[in-house]
Amino acid sequence: MTIRAVLDHIDSNLPKSLARLLELLRIESISTDPAFKDQCIKAADWLVSDLKSIGFQAEKRKTAGHPMVVAHHEGTGPQFLFYGHYDVQPIDPIKLWNSPPFLPTVENTNNGQVIRGRGSSDDKGQLMTFVEACRAWKSVYKKLPAKVSILFEGEEESGSPSLIPFLKNNSAELKSSIALICDTGLYDNDTPGIVTSLRGTVGIELEIIGPNKDLHSGKYGGLSTNPIRVLNKILTGLHDDNGKITLPGFYDGVSEISDELRKQWESLSFNETKFLNDVGLSEPAGEKGRTALEMLWARPTCDVNGISGGYQGEGFKTVIASKASAKVSFRLVGKQDPKKVVSNFKEYVQKSLPLDCSVNYVAEKGSKATEMSLSHPAFEKARDALSQEWSKPAKFIGSGGSIPIAGYFKEILDMDSMLIGFGRHDDQIHSPNEKYDLESFHKGIRSWARILNELSDLE
Amino acid sequence: MTIRAVLDHIDSNLPKSLARLLELLRIESISTDPAFKDQCIKAADWLVSDLKSIGFQAEKRKTAGHPMVVAHHEGTGPQFLFYGHYDVQPIDPIKLWNSPPFLPTVENTNNGQVIRGRGSSDDKGQLMTFVEACRAWKSVYKKLPAKVSILFEGEEESGSPSLIPFLKNNSAELKSSIALICDTGLYDNDTPGIVTSLRGTVGIELEIIGPNKDLHSGKYGGLSTNPIRVLNKILTGLHDDNGKITLPGFYDGVSEISDELRKQWESLSFNETKFLNDVGLSEPAGEKGRTALEMLWARPTCDVNGISGGYQGEGFKTVIASKASAKVSFRLVGKQDPKKVVSNFKEYVQKSLPLDCSVNYVAEKGSKATEMSLSHPAFEKARDALSQEWSKPAKFIGSGGSIPIAGYFKEILDMDSMLIGFGRHDDQIHSPNEKYDLESFHKGIRSWARILNELSDLE
Repeated sequence: MTIRAVLDHIDSNLPKSLARLLELLRIESISTDPAFKDQCIKAADWLVSDLKSIGFQAEKRKTAGHPMVVAHHEGTGPQFLFYGHYDVQPIDPIKLWNSPPFLPTVENTNNGQVIRGRGSSDDKGQLMTFVEACRAWKSVYKKLPAKVSILFEGEEESGSPSLIPFLKNNSAELKSSIALICDTGLYDNDTPGIVTSLRGTVGIELEIIGPNKDLHSGKYGGLSTNPIRVLNKILTGLHDDNGKITLPGFYDGVSEISDELRKQWESLSFNETKFLNDVGLSEPAGEKGRTALEMLWARPTCDVNGISGGYQGEGFKTVIASKASAKVSFRLVGKQDPKKVVSNFKEYVQKSLPLDCSVNYVAEKGSKATEMSLSHPAFEKARDALSQEWSKPAKFIGSGGSIPIAGYFKEILDMDSMLIGFGRHDDQIHSPNEKYDLESFHKGIRSWARILNELSDLE
Repeated sequence: MTIRAVLDHIDSNLPKSLARLLELLRIESISTDPAFKDQCIKAADWLVSDLKSIGFQAEKRKTAGHPMVVAHHEGTGPQFLFYGHYDVQPIDPIKLWNSPPFLPTVENTNNGQVIRGRGSSDDKGQLMTFVEACRAWKSVYKKLPAKVSILFEGEEESGSPSLIPFLKNNSAELKSSIALICDTGLYDNDTPGIVTSLRGTVGIELEIIGPNKDLHSGKYGGLSTNPIRVLNKILTGLHDDNGKITLPGFYDGVSEISDELRKQWESLSFNETKFLNDVGLSEPAGEKGRTALEMLWARPTCDVNGISGGYQGEGFKTVIASKASAKVSFRLVGKQDPKKVVSNFKEYVQKSLPLDCSVNYVAEKGSKATEMSLSHPAFEKARDALSQEWSKPAKFIGSGGSIPIAGYFKEILDMDSMLIGFGRHDDQIHSPNEKYDLESFHKGIRSWARILNELSDLE
């Protein structure tokens, strides 16, 4: 079996692959909004049917929320589990879309052809690169080069509430040699990346409560505590002048990156200036003495994602608000414990509160960071395969974001994950006018065909 | 002419007076929100019509904003100018109101009957005490005991943008022996007060702008500046640990109060504990080493009245907002210069901005503090009249609020003001569930009837 025939088949059948993706994109599978429940089921059914047509044993599996799609295909050697999600983000604000989000089109742009529509990049376009690679192998050789299982989730964009119980209840079936996850991006348009670390996250929404009602700032100002000012002071105190986070014990579990990774990252020649300029900025604003990639991939952060208090309408209102609230998030790395971060944060807030203010925690969530061990031989094989397909060699990179599934695979199934994806920085995922480059789709399919080929001789 | 007949008439006609006030309160004259422009005009028309029915020559006068109501009534002796405002505060947060803010009702409470609704105390209920006093005089004696002019403004709650040009353009018509302003409160439920000092105010709305769009906090967090955090730090830096304001030169023009006033204020036996407990607080949170009344009446302050930035909906959104904004206000005393406070504030913000953030000033306003000279004989006459009506003697007191009109009358018309009002501490002006005690309304009308009587023999 040579890979060449498979790649040729992919090239000549690209229009058919594209047509299938467009069909899937037309299904309005928004998972956060109960009004689209039937559309989520429809997307799951579509995938089951498509996988069956390739020769997978595929089923829709019930959960408390949207269904999972689970599929298996026979093959030799160890089992590989591919993960993707068929649900998509909401489409608000709809008026900012230049074309209907669920009537996908192929557009010519200055950077080549793009597939425009909700889910084109996140994650339907990405998951179909793998499905189409399997289809090509089957078409040419009537078999797959490895034993392949598939898990498609329908709740990734709404916090994956059913995922942990599902993994626990089906661990024997899903446990594989390694998981392949296609929900990340290229390092740049020419350089594929394998993400080997993901930051964890902690989210805390707090509300500072002072007087028992809004007060007139003339009548009480100077005497009454002001919850907005108290909140400001608490949030400001979270960082020192060097951009480090001040919570006691916060850096417990944070290690320096390995020399190997440091070299990999240096070889990327990350263009910090361009990265910042693209969003209207010019200087790194994080921890002093750290490189930009360290700040983004290897260092924990704390940000205020939202703040609200008092009068926010037009003009002035001379009020001392009775309360003020903020959404605070931390990004975690290494072995930082989300629960400990939450409890240290709460202890700090408690100590910072003046006598006349109290705190209410509206919501909180947390997940650990994930670091791959790289000891699994699949990492080197995948890197080789990707380097053959793309014009520049593939790199091991980090990700500043959080993809909790990799952590769950590690914790629940004791299984490493290899995160390979073909999204681009300008895909506008989660935003209006989401797109996926036709080149990402095409070379993505070819990449998985090559990776499957490389994985075929693993034992 | 005896006052007794007028007071009896007021008592027996109270239900009719109340019905007229409720009618005025049903007009949604929120001046800050352009959506309520027609309602402001409607309130002005209502007042013109009501004053005409009493026998005033009354007119609605155009301004660049909401109209003024100007009315004159003949009489002997010097002219007195009564001032009030017919506009009201916004009603947010509407869900905290127990009844619709513009469907006023008379409620029985443990402390007697109250008129509930937006503007009941600030300032429609108060201005109508004077109008009803005039009506009673006219009904009983077919004339007023003094020459009375009236100015009702419709922009007091939105910074009075049209007031200065209007006073300048109509100075000859409006200039009077003294102005009577009804927009303040009783010292306590039994003790009327004549306010002899008012704090000035500065309001500044600023917006801190960082990245050119909202960023994903995973992708950019740790590297990008965060405008919410920058804003928090700027606002936190405005106070030191002793509650003093840190702006350079801020206390220029602030003097200690006179021994005479200090004695007056001490004689009030102000119950700081009760004042704070009533709003759910227990300790003064202002400048260390100052008495509560000093903090409220004689010391400048800085408060954040509103703050807004990033995601404020339910749950979490991992966003670094491109901007954040706040409404900051200062209360001024003595000879503090509002313009200097604004420029010092801006200089401080400029110095505090990191390279990648800019500031936009959305709005600003300012007015000086006002201190009355007490040399006009009307002060003693009014104090006598009030002492006859109420169970305890009237006092000269201070006010923490800002009623810029008193300063404008002094500056533009060279006219002192006598501030007499019947609001109570628990009126919840500017807050949900605003009310005005029926007793305040009733005894307020009687108080003005007595004051007009006392003023009749001034020359």
